Formats: sequence, C-alpha cells, structure tokens
Amino acid sequence: MKKLVKNAYILDMVGEEANLRKADILVSGNQIAKIEPEIEEQVDEKINAKNMIVMPGLVNTHTHLAMSIFRGYKDDQKLMDWLENAIFPVEDKLEPDDIYWNSFLSCIEMIKSGTTTCNDMYFGMNKVIESIEATGLRAVVAWCMTDDAIRDKVEKTREYAKKYNVPGSRIKIFTSPHAPYSCNPDTIKLCVDLAKELKTGLHIHLSETLDEEKTIYERYDKRGTEYLNDLGVFDVPVVLAHGIYISDSDIAILKNIKGGISHNPISNCKLSSGICDVVKLRKNGINVGLGTDGIGSTATLDMFEEMKMAAYLQKVKTKNPTSITAYEILKMATIEGAKVLGLEDEIGTLEVGKKADMIFIKTDKIHLCPENDVCANIAYSANGADVDTVMIDGNIIMQNRKMIKINEKEVMREVKKIAKRLL
Amino acid sequence: MKKLVKNAYILDMVGEEANLRKADILVSGNQIAKIEPEIEEQVDEKINAKNMIVMPGLVNTHTHLAMSIFRGYKDDQKLMDWLENAIFPVEDKLEPDDIYWNSFLSCIEMIKSGTTTCNDMYFGMNKVIESIEATGLRAVVAWCMTDDAIRDKVEKTREYAKKYNVPGSRIKIFTSPHAPYSCNPDTIKLCVDLAKELKTGLHIHLSETLDEEKTIYERYDKRGTEYLNDLGVFDVPVVLAHGIYISDSDIAILKNIKGGISHNPISNCKLSSGICDVVKLRKNGINVGLGTDGIGSTATLDMFEEMKMAAYLQKVKTKNPTSITAYEILKMATIEGAKVLGLEDEIGTLEVGKKADMIFIKTDKIHLCPENDVCANIAYSANGADVDTVMIDGNIIMQNRKMIKINEKEVMREVKKIAKRLL
Repeated sequence: MKKLVKNAYILDMVGEEANLRKADILVSGNQIAKIEPEIEEQVDEKINAKNMIVMPGLVNTHTHLAMSIFRGYKDDQKLMDWLENAIFPVEDKLEPDDIYWNSFLSCIEMIKSGTTTCNDMYFGMNKVIESIEATGLRAVVAWCMTDDAIRDKVEKTREYAKKYNVPGSRIKIFTSPHAPYSCNPDTIKLCVDLAKELKTGLHIHLSETLDEEKTIYERYDKRGTEYLNDLGVFDVPVVLAHGIYISDSDIAILKNIKGGISHNPISNCKLSSGICDVVKLRKNGINVGLGTDGIGSTATLDMFEEMKMAAYLQKVKTKNPTSITAYEILKMATIEGAKVLGLEDEIGTLEVGKKADMIFIKTDKIHLCPENDVCANIAYSANGADVDTVMIDGNIIMQNRKMIKINEKEVMREVKKIAKRLL
Repeated sequence: MKKLVKNAYILDMVGEEANLRKADILVSGNQIAKIEPEIEEQVDEKINAKNMIVMPGLVNTHTHLAMSIFRGYKDDQKLMDWLENAIFPVEDKLEPDDIYWNSFLSCIEMIKSGTTTCNDMYFGMNKVIESIEATGLRAVVAWCMTDDAIRDKVEKTREYAKKYNVPGSRIKIFTSPHAPYSCNPDTIKLCVDLAKELKTGLHIHLSETLDEEKTIYERYDKRGTEYLNDLGVFDVPVVLAHGIYISDSDIAILKNIKGGISHNPISNCKLSSGICDVVKLRKNGINVGLGTDGIGSTATLDMFEEMKMAAYLQKVKTKNPTSITAYEILKMATIEGAKVLGLEDEIGTLEVGKKADMIFIKTDKIHLCPENDVCANIAYSANGADVDTVMIDGNIIMQNRKMIKINEKEVMREVKKIAKRLL
C-alpha cells in the first residue's frame, strides 16, 4: 500500500534548527519511503497537503487514558482531598468495559489534537490496549504496580510483552512501579528485574511533590532519585514522570540514564505541585519530553496546550525569555519525547525509514496569520483544532478533522453513561 | 429587530456561584429583553442553540490590535532587544492602511475565539476604530501618549470622544498615557485632566517589570503606583495593565480605585516579566480582568488560553489548587473584566436590560466530554475554536464559525502583504 503526500511544507524536526521546506512524502506500508521536492509515482492514495505544515506526530510521554471520565470532576481541590474523596472511590468501581470506553475517548481526543504516540500506565491495561488497537494509536503501555495484587500484573505484563514487544508492533509493553513513595523496595526491584527479563523499559512517577520527597527521605534517609538508583532502576531505560524536585546530586545520577523525564506542566500547575526545571535538565543532557498526565489532573489531552505552558513556565521561572525557544519546545513534543520512550529510531522526526506518523496542520487561518515563524506559530499560536489530518503507522486515522472508521458519538454516549453511573 | 435564542443552556455569570440552566433568550434590538425557560414569540430570527452553552462574550481588557503582523516575529528574545531591534523600527513605518488591516485581523481573531469587547491602546486609532466598526466588535479605545506629538493625540481623543462617548455607542474613548516610566509627570497629568474633562477613563501600563519599578524609584523616589496616585490618576476610572510588582502599600492605594487591573498572564510569562498576584489583589477587593496584550508579546488573542494560564499560574504560585476556581476565572474573563472597563452595567453577564453580547460554545465534542462541571470544561478544556456563534450588540457576527459579512481571506491576504513589505 503506497500513499503520496503532495504539496506539503514539511517541518521534519531533524537537526538543531528548523528546516521548513516544500516537499512530497512517499509512504510505503507503515514507513516513510521518500522525501523529495517532487515525487511522481503510481500510488494507491494521494493526499493533498496544500496550505498545511506536515510534521511528526506529537508524543505524549505520560498518560492515564482511562481517567477521561474525571474531566472537571470535583476540580480545584487539594491533591490528597481530591484523590481520596473524588478519584479513588470511583476507580474502585471501574469495570473493564468502563476502562475500554474511557480510554477510547482519550485516544480520540489525543488523535484529534495531533498526538500519535502516548505512554500509558494504569490498571486494566488489556482493555486500554483494546481501545488503542481500535483507534490506531501508537503506544507504550504498562500495568501500574503498587504493593498489592502484583502477581497478576506481572503475569499480564509478561503475556502481553510476548505478544506486543516484537518488530513492527505499534504497541510496546513496559513495566511500571507506581512511585517511590507508594511501592516498597521489593516491588520496585521486581519491576526492574521484569524489565530486564523482557528487555523493555520502566515507567514511574518521580518527585511530583515536595511532600513525597520528604516522605521518602524520612523513610529511607535518601532522595527519591537516589533511592531508585540504589534499587537499580536506572539499569533499564526509564520514563520518569514529573521530576520537579530534582537536585544537582540527582542530576548527576540522571545524566547517564537511558530514557528521560516526562514534563507535565499543566498537571503540575493545576495540582500546585511546582515547576520542573526543564532548562537545567536539558542543559545537562537529560531528555525531557512533554506529557499531559490523566484528564483528572489536567482537563485536556491537547499537547499544544502543554507546549505553550512548558515554554511560558520556563521563561517566567528562569526570568529569561531566551531560555527556551519554540523549536526546542517542538522538539520536546516530538523527537525528544520519542527519545524518552526509547522510540527515537522509529518516530519523532520525518525521515526516510522511520514510521509514517505525521500530522497535517492547517495554516490558512486568521490566528496563524502572518507566518513570520512557523515554529512559533505552531508552538504558541496553534491549538489542537488546527490539526486537519493524522497519519499513524501509514494509516490515515483522521482527515479533514473527521475520524475515519470511528464513531465519535457512540464513544461519547458510552462515556457519558459511565459518568452518570459512577459520578 | 427581534431575535430568539432557543434550547440554550445558559451560564449567565450572575452571582457568586455558577447557575447553569435551560432557557430561551429574547433579544430586542441590541438588548436582552427576556430570559425565560420557554419563550414563544413572533421574531425576525430564531437561533437554535441546541448542544451549546450560551454565556456572556469574553472581555479582553488590554490589547494592541494593530500589532498582529508581529506574530512570532523575532520571538524568544529579551524584551528590550526585541522592542528596539524588532518592533520599534517597524512601527515607525506603519502606514494608516497597515494599522487598519492589522487590527482588522486582530478583531476577527478575537471574535472567532469568543471575545466581544476589547480595550485597545496604540497609535493611529482612527484606523483601529474603522476596523472595529467594520467587524462589529465592542471596544474601548485610546490614543496612547508618550511625551512626543501629544497635541494631535489630545485633539483626536477630544474629537472622537465627542462622537463615540454617547449612549448606545459600541465604542468608547479613553485617554491613555503609555506608562509611568515612559511619560513625564506633565503628560500623565494632562491625560488625567483630559479624562476628567471628557468624563471618561484612563488606560495605562503599570508595574510590568521589576526594572521599570526600579527606574521609577530612582527617578521619583516612589513606587509606580504611588507616583500615579500623587499625580491624581486614581481620581478617574483606570485600567492598569499588568500590575505584577504591586506591594501591600500599593494595594492600600488600589483598593479604592474605580476600574481595576488587567492581568495578562501569557505576555507576562512569554516576556519573563513575572506573575501577578491575582489572588491577593482580588482578596483585597480589586477588580482583575484578563487581557492578551498585543500579538507581538503574546502570539494569540484567544482568551481561553489566558483563562487557563491565569488559573494555572495562580495555583502554582500560591501552592494551593483551591486558590482560584474555574468559575472565578470565568468571572475575570466576563463580568470582572467589564468592571475593569467600567462597562458592568452594559455587559459581562446575561441579564435582562444588558446589551446582547453573547457567545455560543459547542459542547458535543470529544474534548469536552463528559460534562461533570461546565465551568471547568470551559475554563480548562475548551479553546477558542469551540465557539460556534458570536452575537455582539444584538448582531450575529459569527455563526457556525463563519464570519457573517466579512471576507477573512481578503484580510489575511492584506496582512500578509504588509508583513512581506515591512518584515
């Protein structure tokens, strides 16, 4: 199956500076086969990208897809009040089908705002995977483990890794201890061993709040990062979600990790957690990707919102508007996110041989006019609704803002039913 | 001319708590004539608001409309570098027609993202007013004055105030000394006197950066707010743009002003200016509205972006997620903004007798599902593209996202030409 993207302006996200150019893109199967100024070839489908910027799909490095029913639910509360009174009691009642429909909605929301890959941790992941399969998204997925009922999750992780961690698969299975404060050392070590056994990565929350850093210090007489290091966590590729209270001694450890940090600026502000020092982490050679966190703590899965928030928080935190540029923000949302997930050989840029994951951003719009700087327009002026077309793994998943093959109304109906039943 | 809005869910923004209810709205001329559960009446036009939230139009309390060509232009620079090397040299070359088209584009951008009133200060305001007239926006407008060429601007202010500051006018003329650091005391006093003479308000930048506060202190041995107070500025209604470095002694002065502060969160972050203490100001009874500033320093005129940024900055600054709620943010974007402009008797809520300025937000969308809390959905999950229909002064300006009577393509073409010529 061959597809030809014509008349595009492509922003390939390769290199240290933006390289916007007119080009055609030939897609063969699920891969980018050619990028050239003018391609004429017999193909099965032509896609006219006139007035569109074509760039790599966005990479959301930290999600809890099944939390979509919590959008706006008992909002504007303190984290522990909200978790204990609003979220946990409902999570206990979530049925497998609820998980399926809730994450189905999140997948659509992400695709409609330009995300083509996410990194999800939650429970009931077999149902999450079903929804990912149904929508065509690319994803890293992990059964989130605390100290309870761990055996079943380990077995599921093994079973699904065998099926999905194979060449050509759109889904990849990680292991995932929840967080240093919520897992005892044995649980974390077990997850590390499992990651080694399965030759895969590990997804964990780290240093989201000052309170949790204090708890860990009181319990183990060390910082969260040190604690994970001592347990061997950094022997495997990791995705560290949040990383707000990272000290210089932590940075010395994190400099050498494979993977990186998932920065979730909206969630971190909305829950008053704090502001991650992205500029410092990146200066020290640590990969920083962007993530939304779950809808419960973020209200939107639109990565364009995270891009704006990430840029503006760094500029105000560092008191220096040059501290991060629009192009760097776009890198964090694409290739740097891919590096955090260990997928940089497959996605994150538009290059021959990479997977055909790309988004088409419509530019002939009032709020994107004039186009003095395309990167600034995408990072600071655009929003998810400007994404016209989404291709993942060579498949057109959305075109002209319409989901191909997916009945959005049905998904909304089901999620509303679940919200009505549980909330 | 009578219009009837049917099947709406209205969020009237009256009172201390959200009151969402099903209702019809009868519009007679430019006013809201009736809001009742079920209205049956002969009208000239019926508007079906099924699946929409109808709320007051958003109020943008600080703009420089003619700066739209600077979108993304030489971005990510330090404020003074950017102003001196990028902005000022081009501003010197702006022709009246450039000002017209540039502000025309900004007006459309605002309308398409739900803003129905703005408060503009710049130069060449006769052309700005022409564009406002052409688009149907409601606006407060002022010739921005520094110490040069002031006589002509004073005359223009008098002339236009005579024409526009009359009952029923959609446009209102303010006076506007640029800022305490850029105007000598005589210029500021002259603007105050002019405001008194014309019985109107005064729009000024105040305390945007720490550097400017230092400059004023060195020059006058007082803080910016004190300096303005001593010049009699607070004898007239004021809009104070930014207000970031406001001390407790400043608050004691500002408690008694008419008008209020325009908080511009994105601009303040993008330019690394700092974070305004909105929570504290509001606790002290000072009105705080939201503003975008000019596109040069903000990249977007979408007030939904400002709402999110305002909420999240306060939550992270105060380390308290309960410090500001979604409903309070919506108030700042509507009725509180109206109070800042002294227009609270005309706009800012949906009430019988007020001007018919309202926006229709489409809610049957994936990223707004489920609807656990409509205020949270609007403040945190929606964006400008969710605004389906806009009515200003009883006129439908946009419907189904199409501008009525306005050729968007022509405006974009003209602005692109100007950008090409000047940038």
